[in-house]
Amino acid sequence: MICGRTETEFMDEVKKFHGFVAPGLLIGGYMVDIARKKIGENVEADAIVESAHCLPDAVQILTPCTLGNGWLKVLNLGKFAITLFDRHTFKGCRVYLDLKKLEAHPNIYNWYMGLVSKKDLPKEILIGAILEAKKDILSSKDIIVRQHGERNKKSKVIVCGKCNEAYFASQGDLCLACQGKDYYEEITV
Amino acid sequence: MICGRTETEFMDEVKKFHGFVAPGLLIGGYMVDIARKKIGENVEADAIVESAHCLPDAVQILTPCTLGNGWLKVLNLGKFAITLFDRHTFKGCRVYLDLKKLEAHPNIYNWYMGLVSKKDLPKEILIGAILEAKKDILSSKDIIVRQHGERNKKSKVIVCGKCNEAYFASQGDLCLACQGKDYYEEITV
Repeated sequence: MICGRTETEFMDEVKKFHGFVAPGLLIGGYMVDIARKKIGENVEADAIVESAHCLPDAVQILTPCTLGNGWLKVLNLGKFAITLFDRHTFKGCRVYLDLKKLEAHPNIYNWYMGLVSKKDLPKEILIGAILEAKKDILSSKDIIVRQHGERNKKSKVIVCGKCNEAYFASQGDLCLACQGKDYYEEITV
Repeated sequence: MICGRTETEFMDEVKKFHGFVAPGLLIGGYMVDIARKKIGENVEADAIVESAHCLPDAVQILTPCTLGNGWLKVLNLGKFAITLFDRHTFKGCRVYLDLKKLEAHPNIYNWYMGLVSKKDLPKEILIGAILEAKKDILSSKDIIVRQHGERNKKSKVIVCGKCNEAYFASQGDLCLACQGKDYYEEITV
C-alpha cells in the first residue's frame, strides 16, 4: 500500500500524471508513505525533495504539496531522498534510499548506480523488483529543517565516504550534505 | 474554455491538485490554452514557466509536462509568462500577461502589481474579473528556445522600461530578459 492506495492504483495515477511508470517514482511513492506515517497523517506538512528527477511527482501525486503552491521545494542535492516536515515546528522525517539495504536487491542497486543498461535490465523486471522490495530498501531519520535554498547539478553517481549515500560526483569529494550544506539537523533520541 | 474544459471543470481540477483556486493559476490556464493552440495541439511540447508561483501547476494540470518528468522547467525570472515549445525544433510560443491590456481590467492590474490588499479586493471578485477578462489580458509571441538555466529571486514588482513587462526590482534597472539573459529569440515573420 502507498498512502492508502494499492500499488496498482498508484501506478495508474503515475501514468496519468507523469506519463509513464518510472521506477524512481514508484520508490518515491513508498518514501512518501513512510514519511507521512512518521510525521503523523494529520500534520500540515511541507515537502522537500533532494532531486528534481521523479521525486517531485511522487510528492505532488500523494500529498497536497505542489511546486506551484510552494509547499514543495526542490533542492538539487542530487540525492534520492525526500523530507516531509511540519510547517509550524519544522520537525520532520527524511526518507532515503539506503545503499546498504539495496545490496540485497542487485537489480535495483545496479539500476540506481548506473551499472546496467536499459537493454540488460528491462523496465518490467526493475519495476517487479521494486514491487517486491517495497520499503526494504529505504531508511528514515527524524530531522529538523533549518534552511533550504538552491543546490548543485547532477553528474556521475558515486558514494559519499562519510554518509555512505550516493551523490553526484560533480559536488566534490564528499556529498554536499557532508560538506555542511544540508538543510536539516538529526534529532538524536 | 481552457484546454477543452469549461472554466468550472478546470477550477475543480485546480482545487484538487493545488488545494485552492489561485487567481494566478486561472490566468495560467488561459495561457496554456493559447500556447497549446498556437504551437499545434499534436506537437510534442516541453514547457518553461518564468515563475515558480502558480504557473507550474497550470502546466502540470493541463499538459503532460511535469517537474518530475523533466518536460517542465522552472526559470526564476520572476515574470508571469509561460512558453510551450516543440522539443524537436525548439520553436514555440511564449504567452505573457500584457500590462497594457491589463489597464482595462483595474482589479486584475491592482492585484498583480500589489496595489491592493486582499481585504480590499476579495478573491471572489478577483476570480470573477479574471473569468470575465479571459484571454483579453494576455499576449503571445512565437519564439525559439535557445537556452534555459537558473535565474533570479523575487522582490518588489516594477515595470521594465524596455519591454514594458512587469518584473522583480531586485533584478536591476531592466528585467533579466532585457539584460540579455532571456532564453528565447523572437521569430520575425
